Amino acid sequence: MERTSFADWSCPCALALEQMGDWWTMLIIREAFYGTRRFSDFQRHLGISKNILSRRLEKMERDGVLARRPDPRDQRSHLYELTRKGQALFPTLIAMMQWAEEWVRDGAPTVRFVTRETGAELAPVAVRDADGREVGPRDLKALPGEGADETMRARLALLEADAARR
Amino acid sequence: MERTSFADWSCPCALALEQMGDWWTMLIIREAFYGTRRFSDFQRHLGISKNILSRRLEKMERDGVLARRPDPRDQRSHLYELTRKGQALFPTLIAMMQWAEEWVRDGAPTVRFVTRETGAELAPVAVRDADGREVGPRDLKALPGEGADETMRARLALLEADAARR
Repeated sequence: MERTSFADWSCPCALALEQMGDWWTMLIIREAFYGTRRFSDFQRHLGISKNILSRRLEKMERDGVLARRPDPRDQRSHLYELTRKGQALFPTLIAMMQWAEEWVRDGAPTVRFVTRETGAELAPVAVRDADGREVGPRDLKALPGEGADETMRARLALLEADAARR
Repeated sequence: MERTSFADWSCPCALALEQMGDWWTMLIIREAFYGTRRFSDFQRHLGISKNILSRRLEKMERDGVLARRPDPRDQRSHLYELTRKGQALFPTLIAMMQWAEEWVRDGAPTVRFVTRETGAELAPVAVRDADGREVGPRDLKALPGEGADETMRARLALLEADAARR
């Protein structure tokens, strides 16, 4: 099945999915956070074919999520490392993993993340406002930002009108 | 291209992607958070074919992310609403949208979320420990949880050994 490209959509959700919505992409990012840097290690840990892995790594390099540099141990091969843009996916990844542990798995969690310094467990990732208060979807209003095009503005105005009617 | 099913992998990242890693799925979830409940509205707002949309909605209902009930305005049709499991994807969705606004878009943001009560902007979604301190990937240790199988335990032991060498 052909997949539509969302790259020209203006919604940030679509933009995010265009670059990290592919299943393998997020698993590669998880691996990179775990410290995996070599092609062969990604392949082994993910059980992914060479072909698919190299296409994914190329796209992630083009998107600026991973950067490639020569492997000092073997000049014919490369190390793949998260860029700042790639590292910025950390909250998304943890939120996703916590969701699965709570809602998808039956039974006890598989991975517990604790801080090295104090051994404290992670808190559930939450959405907070600038004052640090936790907020849910019903507490929020979506306003057009400066970069919103006409379609987006019309859509958000409609949402607000709907919300006012509820 | 055939897509592998990750459903039998024990990693929570793979489990999460099995249920929400599909591009359309997350866009349908965004729509549901925006208040969309009718098939025709999902179709119109997403520009998705009937065929793909109905397959996605069926899977999301099976996964327990959306629940379907008869539309009181039209008994032949249905309303699709987020379950608690679906609502729990809120932090993941916001983290993903914030990431795209900061790292994928060029220029000004398209959507600004503010609280209805005070008009405060959202803070960037962050990963925090149980004491409320913000933590990054390097501050964390991944320990096997009670539900970890042998493969997961071996993998996490290896990660720890690697981290100790760095």
